[in-house]
Amino acid sequence: MSIEKAFGVVIRNYRRELAISQEELALEAGLDRTYISLLERGKRRPTINTLFAISKVLGINPHTIILNIETLLCSDNI
Amino acid sequence: MSIEKAFGVVIRNYRRELAISQEELALEAGLDRTYISLLERGKRRPTINTLFAISKVLGINPHTIILNIETLLCSDNI
Repeated sequence: MSIEKAFGVVIRNYRRELAISQEELALEAGLDRTYISLLERGKRRPTINTLFAISKVLGINPHTIILNIETLLCSDNI
Repeated sequence: MSIEKAFGVVIRNYRRELAISQEELALEAGLDRTYISLLERGKRRPTINTLFAISKVLGINPHTIILNIETLLCSDNI
């Protein structure tokens, strides 16, 4: 799995746990809805600034999102 | 402090601890030396892919770099 694909999986999971829409996440993070959709499908490579903006809305520490990505990438190799 | 400025401070500190040059870091991470220089001065916003590439060379978990950034940003507000 690519890093950007793992990022998409992780943020989609957190967003759905919160039961908020892509539109709501985009609005609160100051991003476009279409960009959130692309990120969740692993079609864009977010900057760390985007990571921090999305993390804030999701109520998760940015490093926890990265740790989740590391775990997903690692489990590929087990 | 901005997120990208904090990123620059953190990776410069780790690089100097390892006593490796910007050239060595750039070569091993598959990046340009000038880009490393810009990153360390907080003049570019790295993607999470760049975060992972640099972390690997520095021998630090990517989430530890992000946690260091969070700590720097937080200490601004104390």
